Amino acid sequence: MLVNGFPSNSISAEDRGLMYGDGVFRTLLIKQGIPQCWQRHYQKLKHDCTVLGLNCPESESILDDFVGHSDCVAKIIITRGSGIRGYACSSSAQEETRITSFSPMTNYPVSHSTQGVTVHLCTLRLGHQPILAGVKHLNRLENVLAANECQHAGMVEGILQDEQGWVISGTRSNLFSIRNGMLYTPDLGQCGIAGVQRDRVLDWAKRYSFPHTIQPISLEELLLSDEVFLVNSVLGLWPVCKLSSYHRTSHPISWAIQQWLSDETH
Amino acid sequence: MLVNGFPSNSISAEDRGLMYGDGVFRTLLIKQGIPQCWQRHYQKLKHDCTVLGLNCPESESILDDFVGHSDCVAKIIITRGSGIRGYACSSSAQEETRITSFSPMTNYPVSHSTQGVTVHLCTLRLGHQPILAGVKHLNRLENVLAANECQHAGMVEGILQDEQGWVISGTRSNLFSIRNGMLYTPDLGQCGIAGVQRDRVLDWAKRYSFPHTIQPISLEELLLSDEVFLVNSVLGLWPVCKLSSYHRTSHPISWAIQQWLSDETH
Repeated sequence: MLVNGFPSNSISAEDRGLMYGDGVFRTLLIKQGIPQCWQRHYQKLKHDCTVLGLNCPESESILDDFVGHSDCVAKIIITRGSGIRGYACSSSAQEETRITSFSPMTNYPVSHSTQGVTVHLCTLRLGHQPILAGVKHLNRLENVLAANECQHAGMVEGILQDEQGWVISGTRSNLFSIRNGMLYTPDLGQCGIAGVQRDRVLDWAKRYSFPHTIQPISLEELLLSDEVFLVNSVLGLWPVCKLSSYHRTSHPISWAIQQWLSDETH
Repeated sequence: MLVNGFPSNSISAEDRGLMYGDGVFRTLLIKQGIPQCWQRHYQKLKHDCTVLGLNCPESESILDDFVGHSDCVAKIIITRGSGIRGYACSSSAQEETRITSFSPMTNYPVSHSTQGVTVHLCTLRLGHQPILAGVKHLNRLENVLAANECQHAGMVEGILQDEQGWVISGTRSNLFSIRNGMLYTPDLGQCGIAGVQRDRVLDWAKRYSFPHTIQPISLEELLLSDEVFLVNSVLGLWPVCKLSSYHRTSHPISWAIQQWLSDETH
């Protein structure tokens, strides 16, 4: 683990990342020493920093942090650094904290990618906050509580709706639905995180002129899908085989996209 | 600063308080070595820990942390501790992190308490999350962004509405309105933090049989108040002298409550 480029396992207990969740993060794969989809991840990191008014470190600084790591999951956290007590950012120039950590590649069962996963319908509903929607910031209690629900239900992932009942995402993944030859993914203007893998799936649709649209999706519509799948940069793509009354054993388009995502990773 | 009772300025960079804002906090005054309203603060801390499923440390452990501190602002953070990567809490018993820190008493201008403060009407609207509403957890980006708005507007505090336009609170304070002999404070069932000082004001109303009610307050109603005031455990009570079209120079009931709060602090 590196803090601002230097080996360290700790940060200041006054860091605003801890005190207020005042920061952003990204999680990505490094394979054979190559950070996967790095340009996309860096652009997202930069975007999210901009939303919070944080200075994003140079791409090179982060790539330097990755040196010597071959096959693993990398996580980058950028916080607003240490500040005086109080919510407002000190007007004086603050120095961001950059934490880069590595963990072993997660070995999910192969069946998650092939047969798909049974997912929990979370009771927690995501609140709306348009200013922060889409951003992968450090205020993630909703995801923690939703993930706990899944854990208690004995399921590996769960589906989150917003307060109005629109389907938004998984607890740690973006969601897609295919119905009558159209690819749908929820609008994330009010809540949710717009992940890199979500962008890549939309790129697949553009590339192959597969009809696609970003729009609100109701639970009723979702359960009538021909296919439902979940994506993120670490797990790749998992078809959903069961969710409430939805039950599918074949996921032909999901599998095609999954293949494309894993072939075109760089 | 103490971490789990031992002098330290740092915490693990894998602490869930940092990674997800998975924790709660409290801020209170210590005067002449006596933590003010300690029983109330401890009960709130315990309540908030329960909502997140955290083990709250014993009151004695925290009071031990306070030993040797005479007049200052104390802050207690309880996080879920360090965990493996991923939103879900490991099912194995985790050890919470307790961070106790101290900062000098803030010297606000006396006029804030006497003449009152001019406050900003924040453009940021609080999102709804009934599961977390009222809890002083570490996901405080909304407060950070709102406080920045106030700072840019050159004002010491701001008023927050929720997404539907109901008035909820200040950026770091609870809000009260007095109109036609009735004391109003917003319902916090959807968002906002229910602070100790808010409870104390409600106790004042009960004690003196002052008509009072907890209910949604519209901005229009607020601006027609006879008096508006803001409270928290550190700043005490600040009357609002100006907010948009609302403008008052006399705050008789606010001053009476202010006096009672400061007399009855223990």
